[in-house]
Amino acid sequence: MRNEWNIWVVGGDLRQVRLAQLLCEEGHSVHTWALERAEGVPEPMADLSEARLADCVVLPLPAAGEDGRLNAPFSEEKAELAGVLDALRPGQVVCAGRASPALLELARERELRLFDYFDREELAVANAVPTAEGAVQLALEELPITLHGARVLVVGFGRVGKLTAHRFQALGARVSVAARKWADLAWAEAYGYVPERLEQLDGSLCAYDLVVNTAPAQVLDAARLEQLEPDCLVIDLASRPGGVDLEAASELGLRVIWALSLPGKVAPVTAGRILRDTICHILCELGV
Amino acid sequence: MRNEWNIWVVGGDLRQVRLAQLLCEEGHSVHTWALERAEGVPEPMADLSEARLADCVVLPLPAAGEDGRLNAPFSEEKAELAGVLDALRPGQVVCAGRASPALLELARERELRLFDYFDREELAVANAVPTAEGAVQLALEELPITLHGARVLVVGFGRVGKLTAHRFQALGARVSVAARKWADLAWAEAYGYVPERLEQLDGSLCAYDLVVNTAPAQVLDAARLEQLEPDCLVIDLASRPGGVDLEAASELGLRVIWALSLPGKVAPVTAGRILRDTICHILCELGV
Amino acid sequence: MRNEWNIWVVGGDLRQVRLAQLLCEEGHSVHTWALERAEGVPEPMADLSEARLADCVVLPLPAAGEDGRLNAPFSEEKAELAGVLDALRPGQVVCAGRASPALLELARERELRLFDYFDREELAVANAVPTAEGAVQLALEELPITLHGARVLVVGFGRVGKLTAHRFQALGARVSVAARKWADLAWAEAYGYVPERLEQLDGSLCAYDLVVNTAPAQVLDAARLEQLEPDCLVIDLASRPGGVDLEAASELGLRVIWALSLPGKVAPVTAGRILRDTICHILCELGV
Amino acid sequence: MRNEWNIWVVGGDLRQVRLAQLLCEEGHSVHTWALERAEGVPEPMADLSEARLADCVVLPLPAAGEDGRLNAPFSEEKAELAGVLDALRPGQVVCAGRASPALLELARERELRLFDYFDREELAVANAVPTAEGAVQLALEELPITLHGARVLVVGFGRVGKLTAHRFQALGARVSVAARKWADLAWAEAYGYVPERLEQLDGSLCAYDLVVNTAPAQVLDAARLEQLEPDCLVIDLASRPGGVDLEAASELGLRVIWALSLPGKVAPVTAGRILRDTICHILCELGV
Repeated sequence: MRNEWNIWVVGGDLRQVRLAQLLCEEGHSVHTWALERAEGVPEPMADLSEARLADCVVLPLPAAGEDGRLNAPFSEEKAELAGVLDALRPGQVVCAGRASPALLELARERELRLFDYFDREELAVANAVPTAEGAVQLALEELPITLHGARVLVVGFGRVGKLTAHRFQALGARVSVAARKWADLAWAEAYGYVPERLEQLDGSLCAYDLVVNTAPAQVLDAARLEQLEPDCLVIDLASRPGGVDLEAASELGLRVIWALSLPGKVAPVTAGRILRDTICHILCELGV
Repeated sequence: MRNEWNIWVVGGDLRQVRLAQLLCEEGHSVHTWALERAEGVPEPMADLSEARLADCVVLPLPAAGEDGRLNAPFSEEKAELAGVLDALRPGQVVCAGRASPALLELARERELRLFDYFDREELAVANAVPTAEGAVQLALEELPITLHGARVLVVGFGRVGKLTAHRFQALGARVSVAARKWADLAWAEAYGYVPERLEQLDGSLCAYDLVVNTAPAQVLDAARLEQLEPDCLVIDLASRPGGVDLEAASELGLRVIWALSLPGKVAPVTAGRILRDTICHILCELGV
Repeated sequence: MRNEWNIWVVGGDLRQVRLAQLLCEEGHSVHTWALERAEGVPEPMADLSEARLADCVVLPLPAAGEDGRLNAPFSEEKAELAGVLDALRPGQVVCAGRASPALLELARERELRLFDYFDREELAVANAVPTAEGAVQLALEELPITLHGARVLVVGFGRVGKLTAHRFQALGARVSVAARKWADLAWAEAYGYVPERLEQLDGSLCAYDLVVNTAPAQVLDAARLEQLEPDCLVIDLASRPGGVDLEAASELGLRVIWALSLPGKVAPVTAGRILRDTICHILCELGV
Repeated sequence: MRNEWNIWVVGGDLRQVRLAQLLCEEGHSVHTWALERAEGVPEPMADLSEARLADCVVLPLPAAGEDGRLNAPFSEEKAELAGVLDALRPGQVVCAGRASPALLELARERELRLFDYFDREELAVANAVPTAEGAVQLALEELPITLHGARVLVVGFGRVGKLTAHRFQALGARVSVAARKWADLAWAEAYGYVPERLEQLDGSLCAYDLVVNTAPAQVLDAARLEQLEPDCLVIDLASRPGGVDLEAASELGLRVIWALSLPGKVAPVTAGRILRDTICHILCELGV
C-alpha cells in the first residue's frame, strides 16, 4: 500500500462526506465533487476534469438515486452517471455501492475497473452493527416496557440476526432465535438464546413483546401475525420485499416498523468509517 | 400476606393505571378514582366514599402536581390532597410517592399511616433500569456514531451509574467511570470499566464521545466542559439542580440533554410493575 | 418422528452412557452393549443378536480405538468393528463418530446406511462450547493472574475461536482476535474484540498474557514464539498436527498446553446430550 | 504523593514477592526481609536494622502464621512479631493484613501507626474478582456438564456474590440469586438474575446443578441440603465457620468444596497487584 492515494469522492450523503474527511485526515489527497452543499468537505471541485488523475473514484451508496442519476443529495448537480464515467480514463479504479446492471454496463463500455463495495462481506458485517443499534433504538422508542426482561424473538440468524440478538440480550431481554438450520440453532444456543425451529414457531408466538425479523422471506404471514399479542411490536429489518405481510398486520392493528438502510440513518459517521475501511481493503488488494 | 387485598388507586399517570391493572389481574379487589379518562382502568368510582374500606390507598408519584393538588393527568378532578385524605379513616394505610412535608403533615393530622414508596431502596434500584435504558435511547438518537466503539464516560457509580455503565458496555462502548471513592473505583474496575479518579479527570475529558452524569453535584462545571470535544454529547441524569453548568455549556455550543424522571416516560408499563412490587412489599411487611 | 425408537448404543465412554440414559428417559427403547462396566446404563445386553431390530445403532466417538477395534473403555469386549456390523441387517441405520475409511467400507459392503455424526455442523458448533470452557479452565488453572484484565490473543475465528473469545471477554479479559480474512476481522470487531491481521501479528505478540490458537495451521512458529513474553501461556486447541512449533516452544521454555478432544473430557454429560441431539436430528431427517 | 518511597516488605508469600517487585519496577526504593528463598525479590536484607528508615513497612496477609510468629513461608526465619516491631521507630507507618488484637497491641505499645489493609473496602472488592474466578475454576473442574446452560444458585449478594453471579452468567449459566433484602433482590433482577427470597428457597432447591454460598451464615443446613439433587455441587466461599452443614452434607453424599482464601491461591500475582494498589492508597491518604 502506498503512503498516499489520490481519491475523488463523488456525490452521496453524510457517509461520503465522512469518508472524504477521514481519508483527508489520514494524509491522502482527496477531492470532492457533487458534495458542495455539505459542511467541511475537503477540496470541493468545480468539475470532474481532473478526476482521471485519481487512483480511485468513489461513487455513493447507492450510486444512483431514484431518478437513475448520480445520488447527490448535497448537490445542485443532477448528473447522469454516464457523464460522470465519461470523465474517467480506461483502466481507472471506480468503487460504487449497489451498482445497478446499467451502471456496470456503462463502466464496462468505458473499460473502467468498477468494484461494488456493497458486495464486500466485511462491509456487510460492519454495517450490521448500526443496523442492530437502529433496531434497539426503535424498540426503546416504541415499547412502553423496558427491554430488560422483555421477551424478544429474532427471526433469522445471519449477520443482522446475530448482532441484533446479541444486543437485545446484552440489555437484559430474554431472547429467542428462530431459524431453519440445525447449525444456526446450535449457534443460537451456544450464544445463550432460546433456539426455536422456524417450522414449529406457531405455538409460541403469543409469548413475545417484540419480534424482529431479519430473514429475507415473508416469514411473518397473516397466520403467524394473528398469533401475536395485540401490543407486540414487530420490527422488520429485511430488505425489499420485506418479511412481514403488512396488509394483514394493518388489519390486525399490529404495530409494524419496516426499517430499511439503517446504517446511513442512525450512524452516518460510523457508516462513513466503514466505507473508508472497505475502500482501503479494495485498494490494498489491488496493490494500488 | 392475605390472598386478596382491597386497594384504591387514586390519580396518577400510566404507571398508576398499570398498577391498578396488575393488582386486578392478580385477583385483588381494586377501585380507581381520578383516572377516569384512562383506558382500561378497573372499577372507576364516582367518589371516594368507600375508600375508607380499603386495605391500602395508593397516591401517585409524585402525589402532588405542580399546583399542589392531587397529581391526576387522567382526570377532570382538581382535588385537594386534604380532601382526598379526609375521605379516609384513622389508621388506614396510604402509600404515596415523593410525599411533601405538607402531605406528611396532612396525613399525621388525620392519623393515617402514610408510607412514601419513593423512599424504598428496591424501588430506586428497579427504577434505575428504565433510567439507564432512557440514557441509552437518548444516546442512540443523538449520536451520529454507533455506541459500539464509542468512548463513554459515566460520572458517579451509584445505582444509576452502575446500571448505565453496564448497558453502554454491553452495547460495545468503551466505558470509563469517574468516582471519588477508592472502593467505587475498585467496583468499576471489577466490572470491566476504566476507573478514573474524579479529582484527576481534567486531562482526559477530551477523549469522550459521550459523558453521562449521574452524580448529584455540579461535576461538569465550565472548566471541565471546556475540555470536551465540540461534538461530545452530555446527558445529565442527576435530579435538580443537576450536575452540568448549563449556561457554560450553552456558550460553548455543547449539546446537553437534562433527562429527568425517565422511568415514567420511557417505560410506564414497567414503572407501574415496579410500583406494584414495592406496594406489595410494604403491605407484606405490615402484615396486611 | 415416531414417538418411540428402538436404539442400540454400542461401546464408547461416558458420552455414550449419557446418550443411552437420555434416550431412555425420553421414553425410547434403549439397549446397550460393550458398556457393561459403566454405572446406570439401561438394558445391558449379553450379545448383539437383537441389534438388527434397532431403528438405529450408535457407535462411539471415535468409533474405533487406537487398536482399530471398537472403542469400548467401559467393556471387557475387544470387538472387531467388522464383527459388530455383521450383526446388523442391510439397510439399517448406523451412526458413528469419526468413521475411518475402513469403517465406511465395512458398512458399504454390508449395505448399512452409515452416518458420521461428527461431520454434522450442529455437533461441531455445540462441541465448541465445552471446548471453549476447557480452554477457560486451563487458563484459570495455569495463570497466576486473573483472567479479568488479562491480555488474551485468540488466533483463528472459526467456531472454537468465536466461542472462546466470547468467554474470555465475558470474564473481563482484553481479547484480541487474529485472522486472515477481512470479514472475520469485521466479525471480531463487531463482537468487541481488537482485530489483528494475522500477517501483521509480529509486532504485537509481546503484549499478551495468553495466546489461544484455534487455527489448523502452524501459526505459532519459532519466529513468533520468540516474541512472546517468557511467562505467556500458550493453549493450542487445534487438532493434529497442531498450530504450535512444540520443539521451538520447549527450547524457549514457554509453557504450551496442547488440548485435544476437550468436550468428552471436561463435560462428558453435556457431550452426551449433544450426541443425543445430533442423533435425533439425523433420525428426524431420515423420517425414522 | 512523593515520587519515591522507601518501603520494606517483610515476610509473606507470592503476593508479597509481587508487591515488592511492582513497587521496585515503579521506581521506589524497596528492601525485603524474610523472603530470601523467593525468586526475584529486590534487595533481600540480612537483618531489620535499617527498616526504621522506611516510609512504610508492609507485613503480610495474614501478618501472623498459625504459630503466632511472622507469616514467612519463603524464609528460614521464625521471627516473633514483637521482635520485628522492635526494629521500628515510634510514629513509623506499618501496613499489615488481618492484624490480630495482639499485633495491634504490640504496635500501640511501640507507638507505631499500624494500618490493616485487609479492612480496606477497595481491597475487599478487588479480591472478590480472583475469588469469583476461583469459584468458576472449581465449578469447571468438578462438574461433568458445561457451565453454559447450567442452573446455578448464588446465595448472598455482597461483593463476592455479585461478581460470582456475574461470571457464571457471562459463561452462559442460568443464574438465580438468593438474598434476604428486597433491595438486594432488586439488584439481582436488574443485573438479569432470577431473584429468590432466601426465606422461600425451600421449594426450588432441587432445580440446581451448582450452589455457591457467599453468605456468612449457615444457610445450607441439613434441611436444605436434603432438597438438593445428589449430583448437585456445592461451593462454599464463606469464611469460617462457613455456610454449609458439612456433616449433614457428608451423610447425604453431597460434594461440598469449602474454598477459603482463594485470591492468594488462584492468582497470587494479581493479588500482589491489589496489595500494591491498596498500600499506595493508604500512603497517599497519609500524605507520605
